Amino acid sequence: MTLKSVSIFSFIFLSSVCYGQSFRLNPIVSPEVHPDKRVTFRFNAPNAEKVELSGQFQSVNRQLQQREDGIWTVTVGPIEPDLYPYNFVVDGLGTNDPNNQYLFPNEGFKASLLDVPSEEGSIYAQEDVPHGKVSYHFYESEIVEETRSFIVYTPPGYEKGSNSYPVFYLVSGTTDTEETFFKVGKANFILDNLIAAGKAKPMIIVMPYGNMRVGTPRPHTPEAALMYDRFAEVLMQEILPYVENNYRTKIDRSSRAIAGFSRGGGQSLFTGFKHIDAFAHIGSYSAYLTPEVFETYFGQLLEDTEKTNRALETMWLGVGKSDFLYKPATEFMDYLEDKGIERETLITEGGHTWMNARIYLYETAQLFFQ
Amino acid sequence: MTLKSVSIFSFIFLSSVCYGQSFRLNPIVSPEVHPDKRVTFRFNAPNAEKVELSGQFQSVNRQLQQREDGIWTVTVGPIEPDLYPYNFVVDGLGTNDPNNQYLFPNEGFKASLLDVPSEEGSIYAQEDVPHGKVSYHFYESEIVEETRSFIVYTPPGYEKGSNSYPVFYLVSGTTDTEETFFKVGKANFILDNLIAAGKAKPMIIVMPYGNMRVGTPRPHTPEAALMYDRFAEVLMQEILPYVENNYRTKIDRSSRAIAGFSRGGGQSLFTGFKHIDAFAHIGSYSAYLTPEVFETYFGQLLEDTEKTNRALETMWLGVGKSDFLYKPATEFMDYLEDKGIERETLITEGGHTWMNARIYLYETAQLFFQ
Repeated sequence: MTLKSVSIFSFIFLSSVCYGQSFRLNPIVSPEVHPDKRVTFRFNAPNAEKVELSGQFQSVNRQLQQREDGIWTVTVGPIEPDLYPYNFVVDGLGTNDPNNQYLFPNEGFKASLLDVPSEEGSIYAQEDVPHGKVSYHFYESEIVEETRSFIVYTPPGYEKGSNSYPVFYLVSGTTDTEETFFKVGKANFILDNLIAAGKAKPMIIVMPYGNMRVGTPRPHTPEAALMYDRFAEVLMQEILPYVENNYRTKIDRSSRAIAGFSRGGGQSLFTGFKHIDAFAHIGSYSAYLTPEVFETYFGQLLEDTEKTNRALETMWLGVGKSDFLYKPATEFMDYLEDKGIERETLITEGGHTWMNARIYLYETAQLFFQ
Repeated sequence: MTLKSVSIFSFIFLSSVCYGQSFRLNPIVSPEVHPDKRVTFRFNAPNAEKVELSGQFQSVNRQLQQREDGIWTVTVGPIEPDLYPYNFVVDGLGTNDPNNQYLFPNEGFKASLLDVPSEEGSIYAQEDVPHGKVSYHFYESEIVEETRSFIVYTPPGYEKGSNSYPVFYLVSGTTDTEETFFKVGKANFILDNLIAAGKAKPMIIVMPYGNMRVGTPRPHTPEAALMYDRFAEVLMQEILPYVENNYRTKIDRSSRAIAGFSRGGGQSLFTGFKHIDAFAHIGSYSAYLTPEVFETYFGQLLEDTEKTNRALETMWLGVGKSDFLYKPATEFMDYLEDKGIERETLITEGGHTWMNARIYLYETAQLFFQ
């Protein structure tokens, strides 16, 4: 008897029976990562006709087989160590893994997270090093006219010290939430590890919510620029002043960075260029601006490129070879080079994934504020 | 075309099509709360034969009807304003609502959250009052031998001030996580609202993870007491010292409280009685200790009940009339009274639910530290 095929009420009834009376739950373990990095997934669906596993560690869905007790199971891999989204597809219906408490925060889909750990350590694991903390702030946005939240990472030692820190604004993508760079991006552990290794400056990271409630304009349209501009307004008028008033922050432009993934990359490029007086460090993860938008809004940056290059202490762009935005993202890299804007680029394997977003975060966090 | 019936890969493909090319997603809205407090639920499962709605706002599951476009829908209510867990049951398979980003953090089940707001304001809503912040801490537990996390609420004004605050340790139940009193219990907003109204003292709230990795001993067994004792060890040796070293806390016993829901209630009663030198305020939400456990571990509290009553500045127990633990919980209330231990009790409607847990939190937060 397992939990996933029953309702909440049944669950509570079962809990009462199990907890209060005579027997113990025997929960399904899923996913189970074996020492050889093969992974077994298990799912209870006695009445299903077909159960598949969809995951970003494989290129096609895998079929699960049903055991006699009704539980479906499949073992895949070995899988290269990383943190991957996955879900089950039950007779065509996508569902997360009810036995896995680690979920992907998102507005649109509900994926579970598979962590295949690495013995050599990984960039994002919770290692035995000093840990920063991650704080949720709540406020009423006058611009978006709703209650909102943003998340702040403070580095180890922040509470006890009196230092001021540089601030990195880190923005997630379309349908992501302010939690995604925390729960999936693992920004806190990536920074804990980098700081412990002396590879990144201790810094504050601010993770805003990127949904501007103006739909999902496509990134090559004029509407995208208007949405980016609204994000810049929220960041500069509501979030940044709050952070600088409530945290011990350095407030010179060399101590401010902005970067983001996907839609958040477009928002970061736009905000960083628009407020180049406020940000010396800009990063784009799997994103771009069109030349039209760049010239419409930031043409003046091309007038004196030496000045622009002095101002852009970090100008970084990364994208994966199989990213659906690979072409416009690399065209934007080329465009900046053609115009004489110095920038650092990274082309990785893989696609428009959070595995890549973590790598880009890991790379840029080492460049900012140096 | 909607997201829930497709895999992550399909979603990413769709994203790329929608975001990069020619059309826009038209996501399903679910749940939709109407002005009259009826609520429409929608779920896309073209191939399902039967879809039901399970939720703690109704006593039996409701059937959804399939529209011609394959989407299942049902409208229920009006529903009394509150925050309720619910899920869909698709051909016997429980699943959360993929179009609702608000999930119930839990190890065992994956429910979605329905918020039916009240015009008169509710105890847990994010109102336009000063907000505290909610911080995740990460550490390596030497006792449980794993990496763990706990969550800390600091009241509005904490960062800017120099005051020290009393501390309330608040523990969630079996299969809950350290996030449940934040995401479902809404401890932060309940306190923001109480503090703004002058009904509760500004306080720090600490939310630990209650799973001691020793299975799920039934609350009337000797094993339950051993599990509670292990929790007390983790709290007193690992969490409380960290909190008192890293936050501005008052450290007299009158400035420490402990309370919890379900398993967390048992853990709180046990920890509070065992460390009565450290805690002057104890709360039990839908929980109890057996007389055997009480007398085995805390018999000395019965020797001089006047002294015990002076020490217990707050001794509070609440339970719902239809809670499956109603009988042992009220028997424990009677037991304490029979033994001469003064305690305040609250019997509410309803069962072993988070709707009740929030009410008990709201009540006790006004009693502690007064």
